[in-house]
Amino acid sequence: MSPLNPGATIGILGGGQLGRMLALAAARLGFQCHIFTPMADDCALAVVEKKTIAAYSDVAALRRFAADCQVITYEFENVPHAAALELSRCTRVLPDPGVLEITQDRLVEKDFVRKAGAETTAYIAVDCEADLAAALQEMGTPAILKTRRMGYDGKGQAKITSPTDAADAWQTVGGAPSILEGFVDFEREISVIAARSSDGNMVSFDVSENQHQNHILKNSLVPANISESIADEAVSLVGRIATAFDYVGVLAVEMFVSKPNSKHPLMVNEIAPRVHNSGHWTIDGATISQFEQHIRAITGWPLGSPIRHGRIEMTNLIGTEVESYQDWLNLPGATVHLYDKGTINPGRKMGHVTQVFESCEIPAA
Amino acid sequence: MSPLNPGATIGILGGGQLGRMLALAAARLGFQCHIFTPMADDCALAVVEKKTIAAYSDVAALRRFAADCQVITYEFENVPHAAALELSRCTRVLPDPGVLEITQDRLVEKDFVRKAGAETTAYIAVDCEADLAAALQEMGTPAILKTRRMGYDGKGQAKITSPTDAADAWQTVGGAPSILEGFVDFEREISVIAARSSDGNMVSFDVSENQHQNHILKNSLVPANISESIADEAVSLVGRIATAFDYVGVLAVEMFVSKPNSKHPLMVNEIAPRVHNSGHWTIDGATISQFEQHIRAITGWPLGSPIRHGRIEMTNLIGTEVESYQDWLNLPGATVHLYDKGTINPGRKMGHVTQVFESCEIPAA
Repeated sequence: MSPLNPGATIGILGGGQLGRMLALAAARLGFQCHIFTPMADDCALAVVEKKTIAAYSDVAALRRFAADCQVITYEFENVPHAAALELSRCTRVLPDPGVLEITQDRLVEKDFVRKAGAETTAYIAVDCEADLAAALQEMGTPAILKTRRMGYDGKGQAKITSPTDAADAWQTVGGAPSILEGFVDFEREISVIAARSSDGNMVSFDVSENQHQNHILKNSLVPANISESIADEAVSLVGRIATAFDYVGVLAVEMFVSKPNSKHPLMVNEIAPRVHNSGHWTIDGATISQFEQHIRAITGWPLGSPIRHGRIEMTNLIGTEVESYQDWLNLPGATVHLYDKGTINPGRKMGHVTQVFESCEIPAA
Repeated sequence: MSPLNPGATIGILGGGQLGRMLALAAARLGFQCHIFTPMADDCALAVVEKKTIAAYSDVAALRRFAADCQVITYEFENVPHAAALELSRCTRVLPDPGVLEITQDRLVEKDFVRKAGAETTAYIAVDCEADLAAALQEMGTPAILKTRRMGYDGKGQAKITSPTDAADAWQTVGGAPSILEGFVDFEREISVIAARSSDGNMVSFDVSENQHQNHILKNSLVPANISESIADEAVSLVGRIATAFDYVGVLAVEMFVSKPNSKHPLMVNEIAPRVHNSGHWTIDGATISQFEQHIRAITGWPLGSPIRHGRIEMTNLIGTEVESYQDWLNLPGATVHLYDKGTINPGRKMGHVTQVFESCEIPAA
């Protein structure tokens, strides 16, 4: 893959905060961005000159968009696969649309992860209420029913504590094709954010430990409080997955760290074929951010060697929490990010704060 | 001054790399930016949604621009004073247009600096060739003739090594009203970047040591290799100047550090009423950048307490030097910024690189 020249245009499908931060990182490197989104009030639109507001099914708009872009990427994995395929007929789309097809479906994703040589939680496909009853009998309770498609931040999920919850759970997921997952009594949740270039080079950020509230990421702590061998295994596992995808770009893999003496020390929970909330700390906490790494990977530029500035705490500002931004502004060592999303809704990610502590790990000159 | 809400629109006069980096910093804080520039191919336009391409003399365009902005600032000090005044009739303009009037004229600026209680190099006003002859007799040679207005990066300057150079020098400055400055055999050049809020609070970045090539800034090294007492005096001197201006925003003051045992250890060379090239290191080298500090000051937000990540070297990529950007991309600890300016001209600032070395000064949690 020959590198793009500075000044080239990068297309981004989706206009949320991830698209916004991708565009800001691309601008630092001298690239231009073109945002494609169906929503005219998306927050990424304020930081780019070029935009297309159209449905993902609007083939003419997709073609005009593709004609303006030297490479196209996405800020979220639920971009319709057909749209990504259409674009890939006109210009380069990275990561490959085939990755979307796999990661848009929990069942297909988990099968893929296992085939790549990584562990997942136990799961059983559930296509109807009868399947659910059978699966519950096999898996036992507690268990979690999750739709195969379009779930995020705890949406499309129902916890089942006894077989009598089955009907309610089936209703909660709207009777959609689902999987039943075994409940994992894990020690902590971590994620690895890694970049892979088209020539197979991989660079990972330090492992993040993630704390959720109401199924939404609240804090990321870096480095994660895990042993070096678990951290190494987590990174190598992401390497196996990325290689199996022949992935180009930044990939995030969420994992459970099991309690001591469990059969499998690490289990993959979810793959995000994109920049990820648990990597936001890299903007202020490292010399190269996940957003810049993604832009470097998809433009054929060399991946950077990020150096972390210290111990990091990233805090999401969710819903009305954003109203406390003035307190954070006054905190030394804290950097505040607000996404300019307008309306505050419960559970909506409105901004984040990165705090950098302690001495850094920067080599002497 | 009551603080603006996130989502408010900040107007920026000028669309070069400083406007671009101001807009990127404003975006992180959730503000929108509107760029006003006479030049349709300016590089800041690619990172904003709102723009006005019009002459600074276009009063109707200025008024439409002002009506869209909750506060207006400038990325360079040669914005016509009349334009800033016109805007200030409609909305808040910061720093105050009166600051422009002073800093656009070297003679007025130097008088102001002295009155504020800081030293400058010796200078004599020169309005005609006869003035120049008289000034040379008084000052002696070597000396430097500089136009009072519109000089930057060594433009509008002529060094005079003997009185016989006078006619040539007068021609070089185009016979414009000028000053003759005494030649200073200084030890090093430094600058202080400081932010002042409307309530008089001031926060300075660590002093930068600046190295020029062909009158253009080439490198900034932080911290400067000067004693603590000189650094303290430099910062306090900038405080006196900012207070004299009743300044709001980021201000840069370039100074000469004299050789040991000189009468005056510090002499102010130039004031820039704006973010400054010698402060670019703050984007990657500190928790809060000069661009963010400026945005905070002009929006009435609290100034941040920037913490430096380590020892810093900033390198400008000037003219064809930008073609080496791929080498910099591979250097661990280096962060590359490209301005997407298109045409490469000799002496044109095309990008910069920040390198962070050694341990940082971040307090323990």
